[in-house]
Amino acid sequence: MKEYCFGIDVGGTTVKCGLFRTDGEVLEKWEIPTRLENDGGFILPDVAKTVLSKMEDKGLTAEDVEGIGIGIPGPVNDNGEVEVAVNLHWGHVNIVGEMERMTGLRTKAGNDANVAALGELWKGGGIGFRNMIMVTLGTGVGGGIIINERVVAGAHGAGGEIGHTHIDDSITDPCNCGNCGCLEQVASATGIVRLAKEELASCDDPSLLRDAPEISAKAVFDAVKEGDILSIRIAERFGFYLGKALAIIACVVDPEVFVIGGGVSKAGPILLEFIKKYYVPYAFTASKGAAFELAKLGNDAGIYGAARMVLQ
Amino acid sequence: MKEYCFGIDVGGTTVKCGLFRTDGEVLEKWEIPTRLENDGGFILPDVAKTVLSKMEDKGLTAEDVEGIGIGIPGPVNDNGEVEVAVNLHWGHVNIVGEMERMTGLRTKAGNDANVAALGELWKGGGIGFRNMIMVTLGTGVGGGIIINERVVAGAHGAGGEIGHTHIDDSITDPCNCGNCGCLEQVASATGIVRLAKEELASCDDPSLLRDAPEISAKAVFDAVKEGDILSIRIAERFGFYLGKALAIIACVVDPEVFVIGGGVSKAGPILLEFIKKYYVPYAFTASKGAAFELAKLGNDAGIYGAARMVLQ
Repeated sequence: MKEYCFGIDVGGTTVKCGLFRTDGEVLEKWEIPTRLENDGGFILPDVAKTVLSKMEDKGLTAEDVEGIGIGIPGPVNDNGEVEVAVNLHWGHVNIVGEMERMTGLRTKAGNDANVAALGELWKGGGIGFRNMIMVTLGTGVGGGIIINERVVAGAHGAGGEIGHTHIDDSITDPCNCGNCGCLEQVASATGIVRLAKEELASCDDPSLLRDAPEISAKAVFDAVKEGDILSIRIAERFGFYLGKALAIIACVVDPEVFVIGGGVSKAGPILLEFIKKYYVPYAFTASKGAAFELAKLGNDAGIYGAARMVLQ
Repeated sequence: MKEYCFGIDVGGTTVKCGLFRTDGEVLEKWEIPTRLENDGGFILPDVAKTVLSKMEDKGLTAEDVEGIGIGIPGPVNDNGEVEVAVNLHWGHVNIVGEMERMTGLRTKAGNDANVAALGELWKGGGIGFRNMIMVTLGTGVGGGIIINERVVAGAHGAGGEIGHTHIDDSITDPCNCGNCGCLEQVASATGIVRLAKEELASCDDPSLLRDAPEISAKAVFDAVKEGDILSIRIAERFGFYLGKALAIIACVVDPEVFVIGGGVSKAGPILLEFIKKYYVPYAFTASKGAAFELAKLGNDAGIYGAARMVLQ
């Protein structure tokens, strides 16, 4: 094993970059803009340039660098190719082929949510575990499945798309994916707002939320911490949906730990209590004792996981 | 790679054994009784004896044999140990350790349902695929998850326990696992009988089933093939439950193929039509096109998979 590696997390507006020691210590973090013009054709050359330039700054040669891991917002197949990455304006791109050609460094590529899960396993909420489900509660619900320390990418790069598990037959308006009743519609930040609006409209009970400047997942969990009864009902419904969905997922892969991240997870440990309350009764016996942890790396999970990927 | 290997499938009444060439050709199949007395303490010595005796018959030495794969009705961890296997009257048994000590041959052990899935991937309904979900519709609903040609055993040996995914909030009587509303309660052979009885009791519609000597999954699908309207309604409900559950599972691991086996699968291709009809609308976009195949190896899937396991 060489001494250094790079972890790169390509987003729709910026590319996060990290220079790591292969033992997991991050030595330097920086960002470059994601240039979307020219069908995103500058993105990988820009990444190659910043990597090579950082190596020059540090006096590193290919002899010192194990390789580059790179996370992409789109489905990446086992050969390191993507067919479409809408947020990068990409059609088919051979990420690994292009990066290796431009840098001379071994490259591995993966989906950004899966890669972030690997980061949390390595240096975040999943430390010490080998089998983990990462759940990212943001605008949507993302996921990453790690089995024996490796990402389950899936046959079409859709492994871990747990936001689109069907969880409620009664929902008739469509999710972004086109189906109705997806977990994402009720357990994301947006989904929690949906539940809050339903709950507020269904009764005249007083609630701190009625005076809130904006109904948001944060406002709901802030009110829960104040003991607001109506907000607790919303949190219970959220917990019911997510806990039940995770219990179903546990029957499939039987994880050791669930790591919960994304903006909604800033609510803290109380969030986990609402999820576990409904997870345990629905989970299969062997999986009832799975651990629940909060994610720890925030926006850095992607660069950590990308670096880890290249060491596998 | 040596030229031969053994595949062993330990059941509650008999142990199925196979001598294979490592290219997958089965040369000989035989059975020995499963002796449950003495807390199942004779089972592994009996297996060792039959393997060694077969080697002697065939003039094979350890130089010719790659190893022994062995499937067990219970959760087996990555080290080849089982904590409890109720049907074998076992507590903790170090399967791999004991078999290697008694035979001098490298041994791998796995859960029987998972091992059977691997067999179907190698030489049955999943040929040509690397990512597969095996669904066994028998008295219960079993499953096996294969990712990149390897079994997902899970942290507690409960990977692929898809029969216990929660699928219906309205069911209030408990499953064998203690929870209520499990897939197994509505999609196993027993579950189909349950749906049939509910459907028959709910109306006075004529049906071939009303004259059947026994209500069974076979009777239902035989009647479906005769165009029996009430039986078709039962099959639709079965398809709704199983199709929806498989769509959820597909969000987790994004398989290339579902292979459907077990006694109920003898209904043939029509069974797949009822499942697919409900799978497709609930599945996430990327996974909608997953293939559905019937299992092909029947009771031999276990010995094939066990043999395959030792080649990995």
